Amino acid sequence: MAGSPRRTAGRRLQLPLLCLLLQGATAILFAVFVRYSHETDAALWHWRNHSNADNEFYFRYPRSTFRAHLVHSSQMWRESQRGHVTAQGHTAGFQDVHTMIFVGFGFLMVFLQRYGFSSVGFTFLLAAFALQWSTLVQGFFHSFHGGHIHVGVESMINADFCAGAVLISFGAILGKTGPAQLLLMALLEVVLFGLNEFVLLSLLGVKDAGGSMTIHTFGAYFGLVLSRVLYRPQLEKSKHRQGSVYHSDLFAMIGTIFLWIFWPSFNSAPTTLGDGQHRTALNTYYSLTASTLSTFALSALVGRDGRLDMVHVQNAALAGGVVVGTSAEMMLTPFGALVAGFLAGTVSTLGYKFFTPILESKLKVQDTCGVHNLHGMPGVLGALLGVLVAGLATHEAYGDGLESVFPLLAKGQRSATSQAMHQLFGLFVTLIFASVGGSLGGLLLRLPFLDSPPDSQCYEDQIYWEVPGEHEDLAQGPLRAEEPETRA
Amino acid sequence: MAGSPRRTAGRRLQLPLLCLLLQGATAILFAVFVRYSHETDAALWHWRNHSNADNEFYFRYPRSTFRAHLVHSSQMWRESQRGHVTAQGHTAGFQDVHTMIFVGFGFLMVFLQRYGFSSVGFTFLLAAFALQWSTLVQGFFHSFHGGHIHVGVESMINADFCAGAVLISFGAILGKTGPAQLLLMALLEVVLFGLNEFVLLSLLGVKDAGGSMTIHTFGAYFGLVLSRVLYRPQLEKSKHRQGSVYHSDLFAMIGTIFLWIFWPSFNSAPTTLGDGQHRTALNTYYSLTASTLSTFALSALVGRDGRLDMVHVQNAALAGGVVVGTSAEMMLTPFGALVAGFLAGTVSTLGYKFFTPILESKLKVQDTCGVHNLHGMPGVLGALLGVLVAGLATHEAYGDGLESVFPLLAKGQRSATSQAMHQLFGLFVTLIFASVGGSLGGLLLRLPFLDSPPDSQCYEDQIYWEVPGEHEDLAQGPLRAEEPETRA
Amino acid sequence: MAGSPRRTAGRRLQLPLLCLLLQGATAILFAVFVRYSHETDAALWHWRNHSNADNEFYFRYPRSTFRAHLVHSSQMWRESQRGHVTAQGHTAGFQDVHTMIFVGFGFLMVFLQRYGFSSVGFTFLLAAFALQWSTLVQGFFHSFHGGHIHVGVESMINADFCAGAVLISFGAILGKTGPAQLLLMALLEVVLFGLNEFVLLSLLGVKDAGGSMTIHTFGAYFGLVLSRVLYRPQLEKSKHRQGSVYHSDLFAMIGTIFLWIFWPSFNSAPTTLGDGQHRTALNTYYSLTASTLSTFALSALVGRDGRLDMVHVQNAALAGGVVVGTSAEMMLTPFGALVAGFLAGTVSTLGYKFFTPILESKLKVQDTCGVHNLHGMPGVLGALLGVLVAGLATHEAYGDGLESVFPLLAKGQRSATSQAMHQLFGLFVTLIFASVGGSLGGLLLRLPFLDSPPDSQCYEDQIYWEVPGEHEDLAQGPLRAEEPETRA
Repeated sequence: MAGSPRRTAGRRLQLPLLCLLLQGATAILFAVFVRYSHETDAALWHWRNHSNADNEFYFRYPRSTFRAHLVHSSQMWRESQRGHVTAQGHTAGFQDVHTMIFVGFGFLMVFLQRYGFSSVGFTFLLAAFALQWSTLVQGFFHSFHGGHIHVGVESMINADFCAGAVLISFGAILGKTGPAQLLLMALLEVVLFGLNEFVLLSLLGVKDAGGSMTIHTFGAYFGLVLSRVLYRPQLEKSKHRQGSVYHSDLFAMIGTIFLWIFWPSFNSAPTTLGDGQHRTALNTYYSLTASTLSTFALSALVGRDGRLDMVHVQNAALAGGVVVGTSAEMMLTPFGALVAGFLAGTVSTLGYKFFTPILESKLKVQDTCGVHNLHGMPGVLGALLGVLVAGLATHEAYGDGLESVFPLLAKGQRSATSQAMHQLFGLFVTLIFASVGGSLGGLLLRLPFLDSPPDSQCYEDQIYWEVPGEHEDLAQGPLRAEEPETRA
Repeated sequence: MAGSPRRTAGRRLQLPLLCLLLQGATAILFAVFVRYSHETDAALWHWRNHSNADNEFYFRYPRSTFRAHLVHSSQMWRESQRGHVTAQGHTAGFQDVHTMIFVGFGFLMVFLQRYGFSSVGFTFLLAAFALQWSTLVQGFFHSFHGGHIHVGVESMINADFCAGAVLISFGAILGKTGPAQLLLMALLEVVLFGLNEFVLLSLLGVKDAGGSMTIHTFGAYFGLVLSRVLYRPQLEKSKHRQGSVYHSDLFAMIGTIFLWIFWPSFNSAPTTLGDGQHRTALNTYYSLTASTLSTFALSALVGRDGRLDMVHVQNAALAGGVVVGTSAEMMLTPFGALVAGFLAGTVSTLGYKFFTPILESKLKVQDTCGVHNLHGMPGVLGALLGVLVAGLATHEAYGDGLESVFPLLAKGQRSATSQAMHQLFGLFVTLIFASVGGSLGGLLLRLPFLDSPPDSQCYEDQIYWEVPGEHEDLAQGPLRAEEPETRA
Repeated sequence: MAGSPRRTAGRRLQLPLLCLLLQGATAILFAVFVRYSHETDAALWHWRNHSNADNEFYFRYPRSTFRAHLVHSSQMWRESQRGHVTAQGHTAGFQDVHTMIFVGFGFLMVFLQRYGFSSVGFTFLLAAFALQWSTLVQGFFHSFHGGHIHVGVESMINADFCAGAVLISFGAILGKTGPAQLLLMALLEVVLFGLNEFVLLSLLGVKDAGGSMTIHTFGAYFGLVLSRVLYRPQLEKSKHRQGSVYHSDLFAMIGTIFLWIFWPSFNSAPTTLGDGQHRTALNTYYSLTASTLSTFALSALVGRDGRLDMVHVQNAALAGGVVVGTSAEMMLTPFGALVAGFLAGTVSTLGYKFFTPILESKLKVQDTCGVHNLHGMPGVLGALLGVLVAGLATHEAYGDGLESVFPLLAKGQRSATSQAMHQLFGLFVTLIFASVGGSLGGLLLRLPFLDSPPDSQCYEDQIYWEVPGEHEDLAQGPLRAEEPETRA
């Protein structure tokens, strides 16, 4: 069914061998390069005679970090700004982001009727590998000193963000690629993610706290271009498996809700302290409520007989989180957040209804999860909103807070217009990186010896997983007639 | 099936139009009235030259808030008591409460076999709207200064509490109302919730940290009276859809467990600091373990052949959290918490078994989720327990801690008996507000032009949602015979 | 079906009577012995005139505790070391651990096709009872002063850890015991858990922060020996119910993912402060990513046609958390964590594939969840890894940090080799306690009057639960033919 026995025998070794190879390689690189940071190392930490309160762990691990940092003393705080906090400055609650990556993304993709094992399982595999690999890649870009990468809770969080972008790309090609192909995609994408992020945040001085560009736009267009290269004209053969069943839609809602509730933490993670994190969480919260309302409104408007569509609710309701990813830390105002979220939910819902079919028929991009609607368009919209709000920044509106939101403006090194242009250029750079990366990724994944599901076996767990054959077993069961829940 | 095409065409526009109208109205009100608080605004914050550590965000956003507050300095702490902390004083972890509202309530109601999309979807819609709307309503009651409502993390938390009451009411009428009706209910209920809360906490000086009265009793009786007004004599026609299926009961357990584990955070959220929050969480934790044991005991005792009932486990096991909502911050003692939880689980389980059928047949109240058993009776019981424990308060038992639990007693402005009478009067006021509100709500929802499911289509997703027609698609699928999971 | 009516009538009273008896007994013991700690009591707290910042609640309740502790002042910190922090020193986020126990363990066991109600329901019941009972037992061992047990957030956390061990044992006998038997098992196991923990941590000075020995090894071998005593030669009669169905496997993945994401919190909970907690979380994080990769590799390698097995992914991927339970706080190095996790995932996956069948056929141990593979072998491996890493400890590697990781080494009271020998002896003691306890438990549960499912009714919810009989009801439903989701 899933190819001839010989093909199976040969190709099915790809996944275990690649897992072992990648794990072996990262383990060796860890042995050579990775060291505990001075805050994670028993001797270094105590040798420096820090108070335990200074340990980065207490600033970054829990929800709403930097708190301990803040309360310690303003002196320590200034010191920490210089010393501990890198350009990245992801200060988010590690556990919140970790929950979004594994529970949120994992279950959001379980909506397909026969692809739940792969959705949640390959999410698990891809993200676990991405965490190791991006520890190395981001470490080389951001914390490579004296020949070593120093790891701590900050590298854990940064790796989680990178895994998010990989999972967005996974959404575009869900059901059409084997796990070995996905690992190769992650191998490439993690490198390009790290590079793009470095160019935007460190070289161009672009603001992108919640990753409208670096995470959502990058991840979406990387995946979409890759999906274009992998275009399957005969995908129609698996069409009957491309929908959901009743309970798979409910599983997907677990993912949706966990993403929705923790998104304020996600966006506020790397923003500046005090009013900055407070404002970012608030703007994200209101934007999400508005995208939820507009999603329900538009879904019913365009639905048959006014019926709502679960695909819209599962996805477009989240667009409010994506669209304020760049601007939520700025003086967007609560009203602005409502408008942004409303537009994002609208664009996203209409995208699912009208644009996804065109994308497939005209542009030959088969986008399984509709990442173009949830991450692509809202990501670009979010980047443009960032251009607008940055361009409108004035000393009056931000007061002395300008220094933390737009440090280069406060120092007089840039005008608001110049910052806006840099933001726009950052979007352009991201689209280039994503497109080139997605193309390369597509060519890589098309290598003929790689195991890939045939057109008639897409969106199908059974070719990669042992799937429980319930009714066969139960047919012989003595209780069959009495057991109504058997098929439940 | 769901009415004639013309009816559909006309009535089904109600949801999108109402969503757009409400979103437009709240957006305009936001534009006119809502401003960043001085802790969320870049210019105001920095102009005041606060240390970032003072920012309310760090006191309220994360789990177990006020911590940063506390450790900063006792001087700042006293200052914050005067300045930042409102009468409400909700200091709970925003993310814990947010999780309970969206994951907890959302999935708890998924137990119905054909109404999972509506349960989790309308929870999402209602709560998203309630968050916006109660930001405005509660803002007018609590933080309206200089013509503006000032929002920050406190308003986010308060809005979540209000959404909880709306969702309790939703539980009573689950399956028997359309989404446009539900939005109108929320429009009314949020206003009355804010008013009742204001009267109890600010005017009467009633203690009700975990909301036995303001949230549970109010939400339950509002919904029950509303359900009475909407009584459907012919509901029997949808009886076959009123039960669960095997996996819908497991989805509901996701809701139950998340509510159960975070309830100590919920109740301790607005209590006083130090020993107060500590004691509240502890009492809630023990009360919940006891209600779980009594629920299993009673469910098996009254079950056919000693069998347990999932409805009891999903709901009555949570009654221990409701019943100590008022008294958990008082000197209830761990033993008292066990007894209270035990009684609540018992009353709630017996209510599901014996009282719910009577409620429907004699009192004509059709209570889909049994909110009378989970929120109504345990809420009233919790209010009365609060009367009792408040009446027993002595200077000996509370020492100097009396000031934080019962400030009016400590100042000599009230005797313990007087405080107990005020508590009792608070319950009375709540029941009045809930009953009048529920009646008004019922009349509003009976407006003849409002879209409402016919008696034969209650508890049915298909009239509001596109429901995946799995077996139609799969009948043509080439793999049908080989795919046992098709019906899973 | 589930026995004659008379048998049912008689035996089915066991659960409610036992629940009521146990609850009554613990309530009386609570009334006699349990008091609020001085931090939970209004009068004691305020009488001592502490600042609210000193309240233990703020150190232990939220995620990443001790933070408030730390930042307050080094003086307070030293004071707290002497005063508040017990030998146990569980400082973990209460809510993280609580989530793992109830959501993680509860749903991980839902994989069986007809035993989901019992898995999640009995988890709920057992854990609720264990929390009360171990409050008493651990209280007698650790906080019994002046004739009273003083409870607070620390006792809440310790009780959750103990509940974890009980649930591991439950996994070995899942589906083969009635709820009354399970409560009796918990009654015994909680006592022995407390005793073993006391011997290891307090008497032998063994390090076991994440509980490789005290939780995983103890819980697993207690359950396995108990399962041996309860051996059912005729279990084949229920074989057809021992597998999963498609959606039950997805429910189980909810448990897996929540355990996976919070495991760094679990292991770092009771470790020493500063670099200690930071390092523990980091090591656990990397170990889990490696066990995930090796689980996928091995599962595909040994699978039919290279297919992955959900049982492996659900369980073996977590072995990385178990295996570093003892050593994660030591200077394991990130590379060491990867190697340890990789080995644990490998051993665990191979155990499921090859050893579990042998365990049943040769050793007559029927291990429903394969706890030997997830907790037993990785737990022992973790203990041995602790022996190794402790034996390699030097003043050079730990610097002044040696005092917090190995206080007896730092004080010169023990050599590294001696510490290693104590660790090894701790493993031996744990295996003895677990084996003797499991044997006693088995004899207790074999008492002939106890209600136990017949061999043909194992792994079957219907004998203990009202199970929704969906197709019977729906057969009369008017919409049957049109409703594809009915059977979903």
